[in-house]
Amino acid sequence: MIVTARLTFSAAHRLHNPDYDADWNRRVYDKCDNPKGHGHNYVITVSVKGKIDPETGMVIDLKRLKDIVRKQIIDRVDHTNLNEDVEFLYGVIPTAENLARSFWAQLSPAITEGALYEVVLQETEKNSVVYRGEDEE
Amino acid sequence: MIVTARLTFSAAHRLHNPDYDADWNRRVYDKCDNPKGHGHNYVITVSVKGKIDPETGMVIDLKRLKDIVRKQIIDRVDHTNLNEDVEFLYGVIPTAENLARSFWAQLSPAITEGALYEVVLQETEKNSVVYRGEDEE
Amino acid sequence: MIVTARLTFSAAHRLHNPDYDADWNRRVYDKCDNPKGHGHNYVITVSVKGKIDPETGMVIDLKRLKDIVRKQIIDRVDHTNLNEDVEFLYGVIPTAENLARSFWAQLSPAITEGALYEVVLQETEKNSVVYRGEDEE
Amino acid sequence: MIVTARLTFSAAHRLHNPDYDADWNRRVYDKCDNPKGHGHNYVITVSVKGKIDPETGMVIDLKRLKDIVRKQIIDRVDHTNLNEDVEFLYGVIPTAENLARSFWAQLSPAITEGALYEVVLQETEKNSVVYRGEDEE
Amino acid sequence: MIVTARLTFSAAHRLHNPDYDADWNRRVYDKCDNPKGHGHNYVITVSVKGKIDPETGMVIDLKRLKDIVRKQIIDRVDHTNLNEDVEFLYGVIPTAENLARSFWAQLSPAITEGALYEVVLQETEKNSVVYRGEDEE
Amino acid sequence: MIVTARLTFSAAHRLHNPDYDADWNRRVYDKCDNPKGHGHNYVITVSVKGKIDPETGMVIDLKRLKDIVRKQIIDRVDHTNLNEDVEFLYGVIPTAENLARSFWAQLSPAITEGALYEVVLQETEKNSVVYRGEDEE
Repeated sequence: MIVTARLTFSAAHRLHNPDYDADWNRRVYDKCDNPKGHGHNYVITVSVKGKIDPETGMVIDLKRLKDIVRKQIIDRVDHTNLNEDVEFLYGVIPTAENLARSFWAQLSPAITEGALYEVVLQETEKNSVVYRGEDEE
Repeated sequence: MIVTARLTFSAAHRLHNPDYDADWNRRVYDKCDNPKGHGHNYVITVSVKGKIDPETGMVIDLKRLKDIVRKQIIDRVDHTNLNEDVEFLYGVIPTAENLARSFWAQLSPAITEGALYEVVLQETEKNSVVYRGEDEE
Repeated sequence: MIVTARLTFSAAHRLHNPDYDADWNRRVYDKCDNPKGHGHNYVITVSVKGKIDPETGMVIDLKRLKDIVRKQIIDRVDHTNLNEDVEFLYGVIPTAENLARSFWAQLSPAITEGALYEVVLQETEKNSVVYRGEDEE
Repeated sequence: MIVTARLTFSAAHRLHNPDYDADWNRRVYDKCDNPKGHGHNYVITVSVKGKIDPETGMVIDLKRLKDIVRKQIIDRVDHTNLNEDVEFLYGVIPTAENLARSFWAQLSPAITEGALYEVVLQETEKNSVVYRGEDEE
Repeated sequence: MIVTARLTFSAAHRLHNPDYDADWNRRVYDKCDNPKGHGHNYVITVSVKGKIDPETGMVIDLKRLKDIVRKQIIDRVDHTNLNEDVEFLYGVIPTAENLARSFWAQLSPAITEGALYEVVLQETEKNSVVYRGEDEE
Repeated sequence: MIVTARLTFSAAHRLHNPDYDADWNRRVYDKCDNPKGHGHNYVITVSVKGKIDPETGMVIDLKRLKDIVRKQIIDRVDHTNLNEDVEFLYGVIPTAENLARSFWAQLSPAITEGALYEVVLQETEKNSVVYRGEDEE
């Protein structure tokens, strides 16, 4: 059984790899490399897999799951600049892929009923990523 | 190949375990334990997995799949109180998890082309569960 | 300039006019008259009309508008039974129309920057009502 | 007859009035005043009102309307920082209200079939504004 | 008070004015003039304005309103080719504008509680029209 | 890590198997067998699975993924009649299942960073299919 919570946050970011020159960055990231940044309303969907507790009828209380996501992620990234304001993202190029993997790392140890199963991060109506911890170790 | 039908129903429910006292229930279910109930517009998404029939180009006629879901689920739960009005839910605490598992039990034997693959039950924009029959026997 | 805040709440209700007999109620309200109730995820959209304050660039701070809607409406109706739990709805048949008009009456005096322009109440994906205070006096 | 086109763009912004001190700005704009900005996926909905041309059956070709909105708005604001990168927004505090009014000023003269009727700007799922040119002169 | 019902239908159409030659049609309608047609999932939103009946708490029973829309519109246009299969559309170029006006003409006399206020026809996520009977006589 | 792009197209189709007679087709496809066709706004969601490139922070540039989907699918099916206008669909009954499998065949060889993981094709709000290449060889 998988239970899923959907939350949102708004943030600015810029895609830029400082190890490469301006040309490389413009070619790879195009307008996402705009020096003064741009931004998104992100939708984060966090899924936890586990057995139903027969006493409560729940895998994990969705209210508690949302509190965890708020504490570990939303409170630290909402209304920020993801390149500069968020400690656990220092040195991370804030692509949707890297964000999803970083969010997984923040969430996974905090979930103690069931286990983190999937983080979906939607950047726009058209772009999203799914991370299930595959290449973690 | 997986085919998916999305249907909706509206129902009242109350989360309450009669084996425990008022304090336990308030602590576990908070305002979901409101004695006179509250309610939701549920979205149920039913997926069937199978091979494409080369003559029809379909795994299962989605019209027939929706008829099955309506007969087995919607007609019995729509505009009801899930705690009191639905025979196959007597004694079940109507959390999204328990509902999804009960709906699976009603749907699975009724699907004879392909096999039931997944039941997704969305309780609100923010809360949903996915059940794939894992812990069934 | 109109600014609009969208909030949600979940509640149970039953459509029933106690001045009429069971037949009349069943004919008028059909399954919405189910004695033990049913429920919805309501979406309330509140619009305020006014001039832009040149110092803030805002008609009304949307955060404050949402606080007002939460205090006047959401905190009093969320996870309740609209027929029995809400003081300002006693004696009101909780149709979407009546709810929208009652919500307007709760909101209008509380909005002191700009003026309440519109209350939209969506009961399901398919049903909604719009109230602009027309027949108020 | 009103015809409506929906487009989207992503941008960073910061709400800050330089005529006031840090305290005022924090009090008025709260976390929207974050110095390094935050961002949104904006949805802009542009409506034009006019008569149906009996030869084409259209008020204005929606393809042409979308080209106008792209040229006048999207190409200039998408993937930018609204405080720093957009010439027609210099000196404008980029609240949704001010943006909608500025967008109206850019769009209105460019629409020559029918007349601009309404600009809706949705900043998040929960916040939006509607501008119909009321206080223009 | 305005009450609104949302329904959907799926249909094929081709935009083409037989009074003009192929060049004119290609220039005006571009790929919408594809000879073998294309199609859409249309969303029709019908609004009725009236006073709340104090006995029922309703302007018009939304179930009855949806029955009217189904009988007058959906049953006649769903899963059809709008250029060829629908009697009340013969000779009408099926642009969203013309469809909305034709649907208004079918709906308006059938609504006897309250009065038809608005027909919104959404052709795609990006294109829609609103008709309020303005240029009728 | 899975990255997902969402695109849309509009097309007409008719479900009909010419190897069978009119009765069989009417019984199997019902109103979807309408001789002059009907149509849909299809939503295609294409997912690619792969490792994050540490230099770019991406599995595949979503802009490039969308270009591939546009070139391989959208440009060939948008505003067409799927039964008659699309070369790679000749002889295919255009059910959602068959379309998804045909789209997979067009997309899979064109994706050279990561590997095609999933094609979701949504025909209406209520009907969709998921194809992961299972029965391919």
